Amino acid sequence: MHDPNATPIQLVPGNSLITKTPEEGRMLAIKMARLIIKVTQPDAAVRESLRSVYAEDAGMLIAIGQTVATEFATIAAANNYWK
Amino acid sequence: MHDPNATPIQLVPGNSLITKTPEEGRMLAIKMARLIIKVTQPDAAVRESLRSVYAEDAGMLIAIGQTVATEFATIAAANNYWK
Amino acid sequence: MHDPNATPIQLVPGNSLITKTPEEGRMLAIKMARLIIKVTQPDAAVRESLRSVYAEDAGMLIAIGQTVATEFATIAAANNYWK
Amino acid sequence: MHDPNATPIQLVPGNSLITKTPEEGRMLAIKMARLIIKVTQPDAAVRESLRSVYAEDAGMLIAIGQTVATEFATIAAANNYWK
Amino acid sequence: MHDPNATPIQLVPGNSLITKTPEEGRMLAIKMARLIIKVTQPDAAVRESLRSVYAEDAGMLIAIGQTVATEFATIAAANNYWK
Amino acid sequence: MHDPNATPIQLVPGNSLITKTPEEGRMLAIKMARLIIKVTQPDAAVRESLRSVYAEDAGMLIAIGQTVATEFATIAAANNYWK
Repeated sequence: MHDPNATPIQLVPGNSLITKTPEEGRMLAIKMARLIIKVTQPDAAVRESLRSVYAEDAGMLIAIGQTVATEFATIAAANNYWK
Repeated sequence: MHDPNATPIQLVPGNSLITKTPEEGRMLAIKMARLIIKVTQPDAAVRESLRSVYAEDAGMLIAIGQTVATEFATIAAANNYWK
Repeated sequence: MHDPNATPIQLVPGNSLITKTPEEGRMLAIKMARLIIKVTQPDAAVRESLRSVYAEDAGMLIAIGQTVATEFATIAAANNYWK
Repeated sequence: MHDPNATPIQLVPGNSLITKTPEEGRMLAIKMARLIIKVTQPDAAVRESLRSVYAEDAGMLIAIGQTVATEFATIAAANNYWK
Repeated sequence: MHDPNATPIQLVPGNSLITKTPEEGRMLAIKMARLIIKVTQPDAAVRESLRSVYAEDAGMLIAIGQTVATEFATIAAANNYWK
Repeated sequence: MHDPNATPIQLVPGNSLITKTPEEGRMLAIKMARLIIKVTQPDAAVRESLRSVYAEDAGMLIAIGQTVATEFATIAAANNYWK
């Protein structure tokens, strides 16, 4: 899914799963999910056009929620749930 | 999926995964799932129109259940299952 | 997904993930999955009409199985797998 | 998803997640997945008609595999992976 | 999903989740995912016809990847990640 | 899903789940997800044609994100979250 000729994209901002708070962990989960889409579809114009598709499609919004939940599960475990 | 110009949305209410009871944990899971949809589709009017779509679509209701189940798994682990 | 004006719905029957047996854990998983649908679609008549949709749709029945499996994973872990 | 008037269905055969071998664990995962479908659609004739649908639909066969994989993950953990 | 009259199919090759390497673990994950499809659709001719469907359908290929990833998660945990 | 006559494909690059950093772990997750597609559809020309399908389909991009998230969860656990 990665075009080797594309400008390298950082897939994990800060190259760490550790965050100070659950809120920051949640933001990281969203970013990581978005970056997989970016690396699979590197064309910003295409991504922008797709945004209007998924942002108005109930099923796709739910699916985004599922993906973010899965990413967040990993980040939360990495941070020992910020306990 | 996050519009940087939008008013910041708190993604984890209370900025903690710890809850007193499973019931409260379940409510948090629902809220966290909803907030991902909110941050992806910040327009309240659009979200409201989509609600009538997913609330009457059996497949989407099941998919919402899947997402909440995934969020809840993380919250339950964070709380050591309230044991 | 929660209508704040609706009668409160108990999301976790007994407010506990602990059950005596795997069988009871499985029943709890089914109930918890159903309650998310109930809280998202509080209208009993609509839910009843949707039941005839998903109960005769192979794909939706499989999806329900996926959701229950995910809920059950959490309940089973909470009970240390009833060992 | 459970019709309270239906004959009770045992959801976890043997009421235990413990099996002697991975092979038996895999069979239990298949049975548990099937029993959720049975409890959601108690009519055997309808289930039989749906079987011919999903058994010839590539997407549904893959989805069944996903559900069984999720059930099996729980059973495998319950058995400490038969180590 | 299992036809009791069919020739028994071994669901876990070698009846063990333990493999020497991650590579072998990955191969086991693929085999286990395929065997669930085989036990659900025992007719080899039907399975062969479905292969040409999913092998040329982007969405189904992604779904197969999801199922294998789930099986692999269990196998990897069983092997303590081959550390 | 594996054609036994095909040239063997290495499913886990380096035959290890251990990586130096989260970034490298994320890259491994993408590669592993792609390799399952490759082994299921060994024809490079077909895969290339499918790329233009999923790279412009919002739903499929989200599904790819889900698969990568699942693979990454395993890799992150294998590396003890790079802590």
